[in-house]
Amino acid sequence: MSLNNRQVLLASRPQTEPSTENFRLVDTPVPALQDGEVLVRHKFLSLDPYMRGRMNDSKSYAAPQPLDAVMIGGTVGEVVDSRSPRFKAGDAVVGMGGWQQYSVVDANVPGLLRKVDTTHIPLSAYLGAVGMPGVTAWYGLTQIIEPKAGETVLVSAASGAVGSAVGQLAKLRGARAVGLAGGAEKCRYVTETLGFDACIDYRQHPDLKSLSAALKQACPDGVDGHFENVGGLVLDAMMLRANAFARVALCGMIAGYNGEPIPLQHPQLMLTNRMKVQGFIVSEHMDKWPEALAELGGLVATGRLKYHETVAQGIDAAPEAFIGLLKGRNFGKQLVAL
Amino acid sequence: MSLNNRQVLLASRPQTEPSTENFRLVDTPVPALQDGEVLVRHKFLSLDPYMRGRMNDSKSYAAPQPLDAVMIGGTVGEVVDSRSPRFKAGDAVVGMGGWQQYSVVDANVPGLLRKVDTTHIPLSAYLGAVGMPGVTAWYGLTQIIEPKAGETVLVSAASGAVGSAVGQLAKLRGARAVGLAGGAEKCRYVTETLGFDACIDYRQHPDLKSLSAALKQACPDGVDGHFENVGGLVLDAMMLRANAFARVALCGMIAGYNGEPIPLQHPQLMLTNRMKVQGFIVSEHMDKWPEALAELGGLVATGRLKYHETVAQGIDAAPEAFIGLLKGRNFGKQLVAL
Repeated sequence: MSLNNRQVLLASRPQTEPSTENFRLVDTPVPALQDGEVLVRHKFLSLDPYMRGRMNDSKSYAAPQPLDAVMIGGTVGEVVDSRSPRFKAGDAVVGMGGWQQYSVVDANVPGLLRKVDTTHIPLSAYLGAVGMPGVTAWYGLTQIIEPKAGETVLVSAASGAVGSAVGQLAKLRGARAVGLAGGAEKCRYVTETLGFDACIDYRQHPDLKSLSAALKQACPDGVDGHFENVGGLVLDAMMLRANAFARVALCGMIAGYNGEPIPLQHPQLMLTNRMKVQGFIVSEHMDKWPEALAELGGLVATGRLKYHETVAQGIDAAPEAFIGLLKGRNFGKQLVAL
Repeated sequence: MSLNNRQVLLASRPQTEPSTENFRLVDTPVPALQDGEVLVRHKFLSLDPYMRGRMNDSKSYAAPQPLDAVMIGGTVGEVVDSRSPRFKAGDAVVGMGGWQQYSVVDANVPGLLRKVDTTHIPLSAYLGAVGMPGVTAWYGLTQIIEPKAGETVLVSAASGAVGSAVGQLAKLRGARAVGLAGGAEKCRYVTETLGFDACIDYRQHPDLKSLSAALKQACPDGVDGHFENVGGLVLDAMMLRANAFARVALCGMIAGYNGEPIPLQHPQLMLTNRMKVQGFIVSEHMDKWPEALAELGGLVATGRLKYHETVAQGIDAAPEAFIGLLKGRNFGKQLVAL
């Protein structure tokens, strides 16, 4: 009797904000393994903002998620059966297994599945601080912002999986880290637990004038580097406080995923402040991953890189948890325990 | 009897568009030279868009031009008297002499005055293709855009002193050069004389949809590099045609100098296209000038870098010529013959 694999498919494309109606749960039998294949039982599924972009049928950096197919997503789990000499039952592995309980992976395709060490690093961290979000933070900070000691680095969504790592990595390089987060609790976590120098509750500053004033107070020496996870108002306000030669790493513009226009109010500041504004997608820079993962793994193993997880329970909870992520209801890395 | 020096002072700051009312002509006697000083008779004054920014009393990359002082500006001329061993009467020199007929220069301050060779290069070219505009083109193209052979480089204000050099330098590096210019005559000059592959008359395309369609036709393989002298609509349209990893050198945003807001309509394209957008001021990169001037001088001396000049006659004509420059009435480099 074959195992049952519960999956979440993309049922329809959202017109504005996604709802649970856009997803469909199905039960599928796990197929028998072919030679060279590995069966992985997923323990955690990662939910990430980029998935919202894939739900659209529009030109983007990645192909859209096909309708009626399993939603794309990073997973960690355990090999439960193997017909490949590369993996054996019991191996802890990280891959792109998607929103489902099991995946069958061709072990001969390089990079699809990677064995990980769980002696010093918790399995779930490979979806966060020692995974794609951590490398995203590392890449934008070290390759685009390149902070110098004493400079001020600003980070939006600072309590999130990416933002929390950006600020801590900036601090380790001698920079001053200032976060933006939604709500007093998240802000307290950002300064007290993560060790940022300051954190602004953006919900208290709904307009440009107010947010810009808050930034001036939190960044008395101006902003030298900015890691942008949000876009819109935050980016406008940051540009008003940018120092000469400020660098902006554009990682996310979550405010625009639903298609509403978010014009940049003062683009001429990019010229007058001689700014560099650069977008990036971390999956296009695989050559840098080993260096990034080595630093991130070492920091997590020694407790110097902290992170927080919000864990939804069971595959059925994934759509609701994803919608919550887009609304900022999560706290740190959003996972689904399977 | 001392020489009379006619000067143009900044009389008042423009609220919107500058007018001749913002300037004042005065006659001042040339002072006697002190030890170490040099008297230069200006032959040409350079008029450049950056001067508009200096007329404002606002935060910018440079200090504002003081009221009631001689307008700042690049000049070429001839040494007519010298009390410095570094220069002798008859030397051809380039400097920042300002909007006036003569200047007295302290020859002991490095970089204020530079002797130039007029055997193979016309004196006026040191204010254009072999001067600040040429180095501006060279810097943005080679240090920010870094075009590869076969790529498409777009240039706004393509018939101007900077833009014309950008496209020709891009062609010399094997790239495809596409210009934007105002009017059929300028466009014909850009393609037929300067050798650009195509030129769009932006006056025929007053809205984003129309300009974007024209860009699609002129750049069938998309845009890999863009040298921005204008800002506003052109930048918006370019971003809709940007290829992945497109680079934008922000050199001028003339549309915004009068203070009107020019929001960038689709900043999220910087992320989805993984663009790099970088502002620069060429005077902050003096270490690159020798390399740039060596290439530019060689190209002008051998006729491989072409340029056009619009020459106003006499210092009294400078304010009107400057206003014309801001409105695009000039054709190529705007000079004043003194």
